[in-house]
Amino acid sequence: MRDAYIVGAAQTDFGSFPDESYRSLFASAFEAARESVPAGVDPDDVDEAFVGTLGVGGRQLGLSGPAATEHVGLHGIPTTRVENACAASGYAVRQAVQAVRSGMADVVLAGGVEIMTDTSSDATKYWLGVSGETEWERLSGTTFAGVYAQMADAHMAEYGTTSEQLSHVAVKNHRNGAKNPHAQLGFECSLEDAESAQTVADPLTLYHCCPTTDGAAVALIASEEVVAEYTDDPIRVAGVGAASDAVGLFQRDSYTGIEASQRAAETAYERAGIGPDDLDFAEVHDCFSIAEILAYEDLGFCEPGEGGELVESGATALDGELPVNTSGGLKSKGHPIGATGAGQVAEAFKQLSGDAGNRQVEGATRGLTHNVGGSGGAAVVHVLEREARSASEGTSGPSPREREREVAE
Amino acid sequence: MRDAYIVGAAQTDFGSFPDESYRSLFASAFEAARESVPAGVDPDDVDEAFVGTLGVGGRQLGLSGPAATEHVGLHGIPTTRVENACAASGYAVRQAVQAVRSGMADVVLAGGVEIMTDTSSDATKYWLGVSGETEWERLSGTTFAGVYAQMADAHMAEYGTTSEQLSHVAVKNHRNGAKNPHAQLGFECSLEDAESAQTVADPLTLYHCCPTTDGAAVALIASEEVVAEYTDDPIRVAGVGAASDAVGLFQRDSYTGIEASQRAAETAYERAGIGPDDLDFAEVHDCFSIAEILAYEDLGFCEPGEGGELVESGATALDGELPVNTSGGLKSKGHPIGATGAGQVAEAFKQLSGDAGNRQVEGATRGLTHNVGGSGGAAVVHVLEREARSASEGTSGPSPREREREVAE
Repeated sequence: MRDAYIVGAAQTDFGSFPDESYRSLFASAFEAARESVPAGVDPDDVDEAFVGTLGVGGRQLGLSGPAATEHVGLHGIPTTRVENACAASGYAVRQAVQAVRSGMADVVLAGGVEIMTDTSSDATKYWLGVSGETEWERLSGTTFAGVYAQMADAHMAEYGTTSEQLSHVAVKNHRNGAKNPHAQLGFECSLEDAESAQTVADPLTLYHCCPTTDGAAVALIASEEVVAEYTDDPIRVAGVGAASDAVGLFQRDSYTGIEASQRAAETAYERAGIGPDDLDFAEVHDCFSIAEILAYEDLGFCEPGEGGELVESGATALDGELPVNTSGGLKSKGHPIGATGAGQVAEAFKQLSGDAGNRQVEGATRGLTHNVGGSGGAAVVHVLEREARSASEGTSGPSPREREREVAE
Repeated sequence: MRDAYIVGAAQTDFGSFPDESYRSLFASAFEAARESVPAGVDPDDVDEAFVGTLGVGGRQLGLSGPAATEHVGLHGIPTTRVENACAASGYAVRQAVQAVRSGMADVVLAGGVEIMTDTSSDATKYWLGVSGETEWERLSGTTFAGVYAQMADAHMAEYGTTSEQLSHVAVKNHRNGAKNPHAQLGFECSLEDAESAQTVADPLTLYHCCPTTDGAAVALIASEEVVAEYTDDPIRVAGVGAASDAVGLFQRDSYTGIEASQRAAETAYERAGIGPDDLDFAEVHDCFSIAEILAYEDLGFCEPGEGGELVESGATALDGELPVNTSGGLKSKGHPIGATGAGQVAEAFKQLSGDAGNRQVEGATRGLTHNVGGSGGAAVVHVLEREARSASEGTSGPSPREREREVAE
């Protein structure tokens, strides 16, 4: 099985763009991704594409993959729309890795796009609700904020997690997002702002919830055979893990953890031959502040129940031991459903390439991305590593290629 | 790169089932597919799943992949929804092949499901329309019958194709469908029936159009390492080809052929090391009767412009030189959007396993499936071959494994 590498990745600004279409946003992300490849990429080099989108608004719902790639001149290649709700483009990246590893493609586009802000509030409830369990969640009136509020409530009851700890997630992510020119809500907020904001679904306040967002992101993945044509500093996909679970929260054994995240992380770590202690940073799925706390625990950054304390301690701040959501996360950077997973990979690519500006994690050589669909019906985790090809650069650990690997993922 | 094999495949009855849900239909298809595997398959053996659905009706639109697989006890595995309109599950099969070839999975489920008949006529127009080009086709009032009518009109003008020839497609496919207990419209029709039926979109009559359908289909794909655990008569995926094109018909150079089909077929033939003359049968995408005529030409069964004559000659009848749509095709068997591609593979599996009953193509060892998304924005082609493992069975040509193959697809 051949290795796959991220040779470029980028996102558009995330925000509200009434003058953009999903095609124009996708094209902007594609052009930015091409520009991020050190030696450039000719569109003719792209063998295949995977496009993640939920299709909020339902305009070009069918064939939205080919409709996006035709617009950027990728004419005739196999293009597949991948949908796993908010994890759509995280799965698109995984499919691109699979395509490369299969030998069926050498250069693969994995991207995502979503337009959400031109949809009415009622319609948004529908379009987000369809990623919950339809019979027992959406049709009974449960919103996603409601689902995650139940998880927050359970976590508070079981572990004593506090509202202030939820707010610390927001404060940290807004502090990071204020350093990210692409962020939708690129301003800082105080603990008091988050605590005193109006309640959306008790115990979650407005600042515990991510916004609705327009945006697109694209990653370009290449095989080990061709990677040297595009870059001298390849970012290797060291491990991929994905898992599904019951779509409805009520069908699961636990409300205080997301089993799909746990399984996906376990697989990704195993294939990469590393553990959470070996990470320099992580982009995790913080659609609601409780989700980031769950992610800490599910991804092994701390023990179950200690996520609230972890964020409060500052360990996951930009200058902490393991910076989490340096981009601002879904909370501050924004959450254009189908674009989020590829957007996380774009941030990881920036960090591993040393291009993250004033939010750069010094010496970052290994990072993780974690993307969740719905309330945990699907999850996908990637471990990305900068390889030491240039003489002037070195990874801290043993060369990934030296490690024993049986079957990746 | 390892080979991938179809070890089992089956479909539900296609039709109108007001008492079924997409989950119950999917479960029926999964059970039938398991039963079709000679040595059986334990659900725990399944490493990964791809589910194709357009999501007509929009009930469980997001995460419909995991929602389907959780219901059949495939808990925790990576499940991805794949959508390319009417080619959704043809692409799901392709993704399963890619997953096997990548080494990331040994046994993969590829299925599809759609519930269409509980949706109102107006809603159906929307749900099918979203697979056309939204700005210039759907919103301007063009239906899919309208799009294919334009193609029929152009083919008639350029090549002299006649309405009677279109009707011959319907007559042939209904004759085959009458032999298929799973067919939705399992009755024969006469040339007069087809010719005199009411016009849907000139020149297409009601009998030139497929019905709307509920149904599900599932294929189980295994790697060469494990295939012997499941069957002594493996059906090898000898070649896969897929391609995209402009989603809107008006953006294409030709109305009298589908370039995505041509490209997909070319790739599939090349990878399989065969040509159209080496096929024993084919299941092609006949959403409208003109589509089957275009398929003949695009897949190389005849020269451009000769498709009408080909069907009229009887060459594609069950007892003809190259039987096409032995299942009854989309026209008679039915067209549950997301299930169609996997349903074609189920028919090919039946034919290659010698289990097609009174519609069996004698000595069938090699078949093709051809699945189109929209009016040609996407297409995917599989060449499937029965391997001669049992001493009592033999393929007519050289062993596929003896053939030179560089990179499959």
